[in-house]
Amino acid sequence: MVREDAVEVRDLRQHAGREVTIQGWVQTVREHGKVAFVVVRDGTGVVQTVLVQKQLGQALWQMATGLAQESTVAVRGTVRKEPRAPGGCEIAVTNLVLLAGSEEYPLQPKEHGIDFLLDHRHLWLRSSQQHAILRVRAEVEQAIHDFFYARNFVRIDTPILSGAIGESAGTLFETDYFGERAFLAQTGQLYVEAAAAALRKVYCFGPTFRAEKSKTRRHLTEFWMVEPEVAFADSEDNMRLQEELVTYVVGRAVERCGEELAILERDTSALEPVRPPFPRISYTDAVALLRGRGSDMQWGDDLGGNDETILSQTSDLPVFVYNYPRQAKAFYMKENPEDPRTVLCNDLLAPDGYGEIVGGSQREDDHGRLLARIREEQLPEHAYGWYLDLRRYGTFPHSGFGLGIERTLAWITGRRHVRELIPFPRMLNRLTP
Amino acid sequence: MVREDAVEVRDLRQHAGREVTIQGWVQTVREHGKVAFVVVRDGTGVVQTVLVQKQLGQALWQMATGLAQESTVAVRGTVRKEPRAPGGCEIAVTNLVLLAGSEEYPLQPKEHGIDFLLDHRHLWLRSSQQHAILRVRAEVEQAIHDFFYARNFVRIDTPILSGAIGESAGTLFETDYFGERAFLAQTGQLYVEAAAAALRKVYCFGPTFRAEKSKTRRHLTEFWMVEPEVAFADSEDNMRLQEELVTYVVGRAVERCGEELAILERDTSALEPVRPPFPRISYTDAVALLRGRGSDMQWGDDLGGNDETILSQTSDLPVFVYNYPRQAKAFYMKENPEDPRTVLCNDLLAPDGYGEIVGGSQREDDHGRLLARIREEQLPEHAYGWYLDLRRYGTFPHSGFGLGIERTLAWITGRRHVRELIPFPRMLNRLTP
Repeated sequence: MVREDAVEVRDLRQHAGREVTIQGWVQTVREHGKVAFVVVRDGTGVVQTVLVQKQLGQALWQMATGLAQESTVAVRGTVRKEPRAPGGCEIAVTNLVLLAGSEEYPLQPKEHGIDFLLDHRHLWLRSSQQHAILRVRAEVEQAIHDFFYARNFVRIDTPILSGAIGESAGTLFETDYFGERAFLAQTGQLYVEAAAAALRKVYCFGPTFRAEKSKTRRHLTEFWMVEPEVAFADSEDNMRLQEELVTYVVGRAVERCGEELAILERDTSALEPVRPPFPRISYTDAVALLRGRGSDMQWGDDLGGNDETILSQTSDLPVFVYNYPRQAKAFYMKENPEDPRTVLCNDLLAPDGYGEIVGGSQREDDHGRLLARIREEQLPEHAYGWYLDLRRYGTFPHSGFGLGIERTLAWITGRRHVRELIPFPRMLNRLTP
Repeated sequence: MVREDAVEVRDLRQHAGREVTIQGWVQTVREHGKVAFVVVRDGTGVVQTVLVQKQLGQALWQMATGLAQESTVAVRGTVRKEPRAPGGCEIAVTNLVLLAGSEEYPLQPKEHGIDFLLDHRHLWLRSSQQHAILRVRAEVEQAIHDFFYARNFVRIDTPILSGAIGESAGTLFETDYFGERAFLAQTGQLYVEAAAAALRKVYCFGPTFRAEKSKTRRHLTEFWMVEPEVAFADSEDNMRLQEELVTYVVGRAVERCGEELAILERDTSALEPVRPPFPRISYTDAVALLRGRGSDMQWGDDLGGNDETILSQTSDLPVFVYNYPRQAKAFYMKENPEDPRTVLCNDLLAPDGYGEIVGGSQREDDHGRLLARIREEQLPEHAYGWYLDLRRYGTFPHSGFGLGIERTLAWITGRRHVRELIPFPRMLNRLTP
């Protein structure tokens, strides 16, 4: 440590009655006659430090009361319990050293426009709400890893650069790869399918890319997904795994991020009841339900955002919509033997209109049917040679899904726009910082 | 499950004496008169199943003894303990169902060339050594997350697409981003520095990209790194954190991957002594040592692979080489106040010639010096505006490092080439599968 005896604000309560040093940034300075309060943020917490003029001497008093917001300081003093203070402690200052000053800080408590905030994302991260969001994100990510680790899944890191193609050829970022064309992955699914034949239960976790010109609250060009894939699992098993994962992750966030969710003013009573089983409605029944409520959608149309909102309002829990028409879904989904117009798949809709957080399916494991679908969609057959191999050498029933991290976090944190749920969002017209 | 009562081979011992069903792939079939042995791999383990002709009837016997390698089967039978069998159990078969046949499998026990194996990477993953490698990789990755989670680090996912530039402009993959130029990240460091000002102790974990035309055993164009960054930590703290991380990760692999390391014929006695402190040698002393051994390198030259091997052979532990000449290192490293020809940085060399696994440094926190270095290196100043902001608004001492996952795994697993240590390697001339 730059100061050998420095402690973190998070741990202050353990040091009550002792003299300690903290290092951090000045959030506010208030002067009340001969007493001043310097609130210091150190990244682990925020603490009020109390300065008494006659104890510190004039020079130190003047420096301290003139501190600019975001100045870097080391503060020495005695920790005392103070139930009214945030964190339950304050520091009676015996010394304060200015480590570095700050120019006038661009972010002020007043309302800034979203573009200004995103332009200053590298600084905006210092605010308490953004802190809270990032902590919830980190907790949710660790929870996902813990969930799969405890269930003996093997994590498989799938490639970002690929000559093959994921879901939709129109929305790919492309790069020159030593003279070849390469594309940024939209999914790791095809690769985890190969790994499932080797290791049975696997998942990938990482960034994915969609070059979509969408400017909605639910789109990022770069977003993170977890994608499990399980050999010998069918579509029913797949929905059960989704339920269990979502339940575990939401439970961890509620259990361990109470403080953060309070800062975000998230009503956690909406999250606490989340547990299996989640309600299930087939696509066909969903169409009937929506038409009964005045929609003029036809069987075969994909569900729109409004349709999803109506369906999600049928329950306080996330809702499965399963077995969509094959023309509305990707080529790799398995034909439903009981109704070949549909495929064995599901979306999972979060409650309260937070929209789709998971898409999953049983995969087409018949070589001939899969090849026919690849041709029907006019996909480049040669690029799928290795993927078809998985159906030539011991094909096997298998299922998997992708859970979008930012969309899941939007629901958990109660934010309507995904742009705040990733540290440095990438959107149409936003590539920096 | 496709079969409701199916169990995993991993758990067979718990079912000794009972009748169970397993599902998996046929690895080998051997016939010994009226008894046959079908070895089945299910992704969680491998088990020998024993078929007795007179018990099964002629039709089943013929089908089973004619099974092609990689056929998918469901095998029912009684689990019995068999100390001589791998896993300690075998299955006395009562029924065997062929779920899917297999075409002639391209991978045979004979030696294949590496290009053939990499062309068939999607199938090669099914072999026992590749299994073992991927399991060690997953364990190491979980260990890294657990290490940082336990220490209250906040995981920060840094962007892959960026208008800014990392270490070296000549080795970037570029893509069109809705009319702008974007580059694939070579590091998340600049972003975790911003996050460290917000959350004190942070790390990123993800893929990074180098468009290097290197064809060595130590280069991938797409590789994974973990990059922690700590506010108020100096270069000494940084080396201590590296020691602790490496010790923890190696310990977890030894403790929980004994079976996998045995399959890989890794002598773990070389890994067991790994604990702090690791030996430290300054760059300047390293040059003297190397010259004493006949090298004609000059002070100021970077260390070559051979130099690193010689230095790593001075100890059974990883070795720190610290405080390199500034011209050999990146612009963002902090000038060493005690010797301004050098910067406060370190590499960490794995033992036995496995080479550099970590590069770290204290970051230049002086706005003027950092700007001068950016100009000296002729980097695009405007792209670093937000990075310079971190030195304008409460600059702070901070340090961090990057640990390469594949190189660390090469050492842990005792493999000389990184290409096997990632599920789907990307190299010069290799973009598929």
